[in-house]
Amino acid sequence: MSVNADLYIEVKNFYARQMRVLDDLDIEQFTATFTEDGSVAHPHRGEKVEGREAMRAKMKSMLPMYEGLVTRHWFDHFLIEPAEGDVLRVTYYSLVTQTNTKDEVHFFSSSSVEDRMVRVDGELRIRERTIHRDNPKYGRVI
Amino acid sequence: MSVNADLYIEVKNFYARQMRVLDDLDIEQFTATFTEDGSVAHPHRGEKVEGREAMRAKMKSMLPMYEGLVTRHWFDHFLIEPAEGDVLRVTYYSLVTQTNTKDEVHFFSSSSVEDRMVRVDGELRIRERTIHRDNPKYGRVI
Amino acid sequence: MSVNADLYIEVKNFYARQMRVLDDLDIEQFTATFTEDGSVAHPHRGEKVEGREAMRAKMKSMLPMYEGLVTRHWFDHFLIEPAEGDVLRVTYYSLVTQTNTKDEVHFFSSSSVEDRMVRVDGELRIRERTIHRDNPKYGRVI
Repeated sequence: MSVNADLYIEVKNFYARQMRVLDDLDIEQFTATFTEDGSVAHPHRGEKVEGREAMRAKMKSMLPMYEGLVTRHWFDHFLIEPAEGDVLRVTYYSLVTQTNTKDEVHFFSSSSVEDRMVRVDGELRIRERTIHRDNPKYGRVI
Repeated sequence: MSVNADLYIEVKNFYARQMRVLDDLDIEQFTATFTEDGSVAHPHRGEKVEGREAMRAKMKSMLPMYEGLVTRHWFDHFLIEPAEGDVLRVTYYSLVTQTNTKDEVHFFSSSSVEDRMVRVDGELRIRERTIHRDNPKYGRVI
Repeated sequence: MSVNADLYIEVKNFYARQMRVLDDLDIEQFTATFTEDGSVAHPHRGEKVEGREAMRAKMKSMLPMYEGLVTRHWFDHFLIEPAEGDVLRVTYYSLVTQTNTKDEVHFFSSSSVEDRMVRVDGELRIRERTIHRDNPKYGRVI
């Protein structure tokens, strides 16, 4: 895929929708934005979850961490680049905040993310997501 | 209105300008970005202010809260969707920070916003703004 | 230059790349995104650094402030406007965060920035950057 203005905006819309369902803790809709064999890796904790089924189980196990809070992901500095075959490589900054019942907003994390995206039946889907947590111990990645 | 790249960028420019005048506490220029009967609702406090005149009065009464601080609104995850008639429905995340005289930056609030936008004499204007404050007590809205 | 969707996205890509190399403390690559006589001014501390050579020296002297932290610049509310000759005037909000070895994220600063950008051999380069630190003492600038 070559990256013209229409594709740029389609990709931005993809993330706008994906973050709404993620921050709404809608595990079904969130995992549906990945390919069936899609994966999410957190290299800083040596973790890679592969396939929608495993993603659903992992997310369910983590729900208690997110209860009683409104979580929001804030993205910036997108680069959308054609990669091998019909893959799009999308990289961006990600800042996560959480708001509690007292209206207090706190930082949760700062990361950079690398996605590999493909089309399935015309729709953009993530095949591989790698989340690099910001921490000077790990070094900078993107 | 169908949403092509030019309209997408026109809408982003609208918000870039609207936030400059809001964060500059320029009540005249800010209310001019709404239609004459434009409204701003804060459902979490059961408030809806209707019409530029009422908006000006409300904002003047709130100015003391913003004095001695630089307020900044940070937006993300825009979705721009054609709605009934010539209305555009625009939804986005909104994070508000404030900086004091000691260069200290603090969070003020985290919200999601839903705008209904129309053209008046060719220019985009907000007819209805609904600000959903993030708080797990209220549930998630967009 | 007139600002169509392609140029808008080219400018956004420029900043996405420039921030990666800045936040990676890559002084060589960062200064290469400026013209040879490019400048960076911080009016709130009466400072203007002119020319890549002086920028490199200044940045090297400031590196200790950034060691042991991951710094991230978050931008918003871009306005890209044709200015005199072939210059583009680009203004935006800038929020800077830092993450330490304990995964703690802190605010570093909030600013508004004004860049004057030109093409050199087809590539966008900054000729003048002015960083207006947010502080109610200095008043609002953009």
